Amino acid sequence: MDDNWLPALADLAVRGGANVQPGQVVSLSCQPGQERLAREVAHAAYRAGAKYVDVTWHDPFVKRARALHAAEDTLDWAPPWLGERAKHLGRMSAAVVSLSGPVAPGVFDDCDPVRVARDRLPSIPETMALVMESSVNWTVVPCPNPAWAAMVFPDLGADAALTRLAEAIVHVCRLDTDDPVDAWRRRGAELAERAARLSEMPIDALHFVGPGTDLTVGLFPSSRWLGGGEHRRDGLAHLPNIPTEEVFTTPDPARTNGVVSATLPLDLAGTLVEGLRVRFEGGRAVEITADRGVEAMRGRMAADDGAARLGEVALVDGSGRIGPLGITFNDTLLDENAASHIALGAAYPAGVGAEHRAAANVSDIHVDFMIGGPEVVVRAVAPDGTESPLLVRGEFTA
Amino acid sequence: MDDNWLPALADLAVRGGANVQPGQVVSLSCQPGQERLAREVAHAAYRAGAKYVDVTWHDPFVKRARALHAAEDTLDWAPPWLGERAKHLGRMSAAVVSLSGPVAPGVFDDCDPVRVARDRLPSIPETMALVMESSVNWTVVPCPNPAWAAMVFPDLGADAALTRLAEAIVHVCRLDTDDPVDAWRRRGAELAERAARLSEMPIDALHFVGPGTDLTVGLFPSSRWLGGGEHRRDGLAHLPNIPTEEVFTTPDPARTNGVVSATLPLDLAGTLVEGLRVRFEGGRAVEITADRGVEAMRGRMAADDGAARLGEVALVDGSGRIGPLGITFNDTLLDENAASHIALGAAYPAGVGAEHRAAANVSDIHVDFMIGGPEVVVRAVAPDGTESPLLVRGEFTA
Repeated sequence: MDDNWLPALADLAVRGGANVQPGQVVSLSCQPGQERLAREVAHAAYRAGAKYVDVTWHDPFVKRARALHAAEDTLDWAPPWLGERAKHLGRMSAAVVSLSGPVAPGVFDDCDPVRVARDRLPSIPETMALVMESSVNWTVVPCPNPAWAAMVFPDLGADAALTRLAEAIVHVCRLDTDDPVDAWRRRGAELAERAARLSEMPIDALHFVGPGTDLTVGLFPSSRWLGGGEHRRDGLAHLPNIPTEEVFTTPDPARTNGVVSATLPLDLAGTLVEGLRVRFEGGRAVEITADRGVEAMRGRMAADDGAARLGEVALVDGSGRIGPLGITFNDTLLDENAASHIALGAAYPAGVGAEHRAAANVSDIHVDFMIGGPEVVVRAVAPDGTESPLLVRGEFTA
Repeated sequence: MDDNWLPALADLAVRGGANVQPGQVVSLSCQPGQERLAREVAHAAYRAGAKYVDVTWHDPFVKRARALHAAEDTLDWAPPWLGERAKHLGRMSAAVVSLSGPVAPGVFDDCDPVRVARDRLPSIPETMALVMESSVNWTVVPCPNPAWAAMVFPDLGADAALTRLAEAIVHVCRLDTDDPVDAWRRRGAELAERAARLSEMPIDALHFVGPGTDLTVGLFPSSRWLGGGEHRRDGLAHLPNIPTEEVFTTPDPARTNGVVSATLPLDLAGTLVEGLRVRFEGGRAVEITADRGVEAMRGRMAADDGAARLGEVALVDGSGRIGPLGITFNDTLLDENAASHIALGAAYPAGVGAEHRAAANVSDIHVDFMIGGPEVVVRAVAPDGTESPLLVRGEFTA
């Protein structure tokens, strides 16, 4: 497999994802190990007319040094200039491109997980606000690297594993189509149509039932389904995730009840969380267990009042390209588009009508985890309490 | 050669160089290709009690993308958050560690040199001010990488070249001594003693004479010689360069006259400048030529009024460890400590008495270039105009 897909993915990120405009400043977030794609994104962005590409690198190995040695009471300190930079990006209506994919799996395995969880960087509230306030045109795309490939395909040699991962990413990003930007325009239209149909249905709540899961997620009367693209507050279209196969909405943060078991692991900035189980009462997560990485999850959920309540519920059917591969990527961007999921933390304001916007969940975190799969049925609960199947064995019933 | 020298160099940078204090924020500037030393510096800094290590990565390949594609009128734009970050570092009296050594020699060879020169990043005035105002305790240390090794030792294979470069750096950084921090304390004392002796001499000007060089650099009556370490404005000692073998002072920016030929190439953020010749009149560089890279040099010198005048003159004798190796490193940190040199641009205020401080050179740039060597004689010019030999064949005469 040659490397022509790298510039193609970069071009897709810039034109089909963030939709970089001439004269824009572009923030590019990446990690050591992602240099080649980062440089291609820089080329593509400048070719698209970017004024400046500001690359920030987050190194998990430096974060590990902090987790091992820094004084306890300093671990949640974040430099003020990171927030100031984010505010600049918002004021200048910048473009934001982030590269996804774990570069250092297991890097925190020899650290105290409670200490690791106290350092939430590179996540900061000001960056979350850029997304939630739709002040930037942003996208996230996956970037293969050898360490990630070895985690996904442990039985293959290094070269074969990287090739397999790259092939999978080419496929799910639709780089094997004649015109990937157009392919995503068309896929986006399909998802937007699905979202519109769901928004017209009188759904008071979603009821997830499957192995270890019996969860009801209450919606607002004005909850709107979204998918296939978003708009910056001034109307500029962008595709926040490539790939994206989901439709999603903003739930009522007071009306989630029951138990849920994650159907896929999630990577929390270097810590893998596996076998996650959460019990909700009155919207709040009151009990969290996991086979691995529970402290990282608890750390996130202790961030603020809204961090233990839902800000998003998303449905993924079997028509996408990720689920059918049957690959667990251990990367939320890909795995969340293979299976229905929920997110703790910040709600997208656009997912709810103005009359309920003030009641949508507010938080500095937004952590998705996957709860759907072939064995999980999703039922729509009507305002009168009657339930009807909505998503069964990967197919929408309506 | 094993890699034990990496943590030793990191520890030297943190304790012997920047002198990181408990509770300090540490800014660490590096480039892709320097990950291993960067991570060791982070470990060493946190072990020394750092509150937070903020790593910034500058990627010359991303800068190349800008030079190739960005609109002409945007090339000198710099993000405001870089300057704000620098001001924060000054206000909090942070520590600053930078890793030196070209990671991408020739990266701009296929770019328009005039366009490359217009983008001065990662250099910004606010970072220069931190140094000139002594508001941070800082150091620069060399970091070997394969691309640099191949440039320095083009006739060796990749592994052998890297080993040779690492061995040279271990030697010149005195990591082969029992206690490198103490070795630098002692070497610093020697340089400080030499500087004190020079400060007591009635030197009105320095006269450099050698092949292609006949240059007189006028000093202030209150010019002070420095070397072997500096102090933050609150008195905290630090060693700005490891290695350092120089003594230096602040010249009168109006009193340099004659011609000078660089005796070593210099790497200007990725552009190699070779065969540089400069003619000065009344302190100002009025004619600049070079065999290679002249546009990069002219670009720097066009930065502002002070960029074409001298801010530093430095003498290096043969008692250091770099010159005797006979290696051209193509890295200013090392090469400037092999040979006497001058710098265009900003003057160190500490190098001149308060009565002349306002007349010292001011600029947003500071570019050293090497003008000394075995064939160049340095004479001291007394206030009455008489000349006496000061540095001949690498030895001070007094």
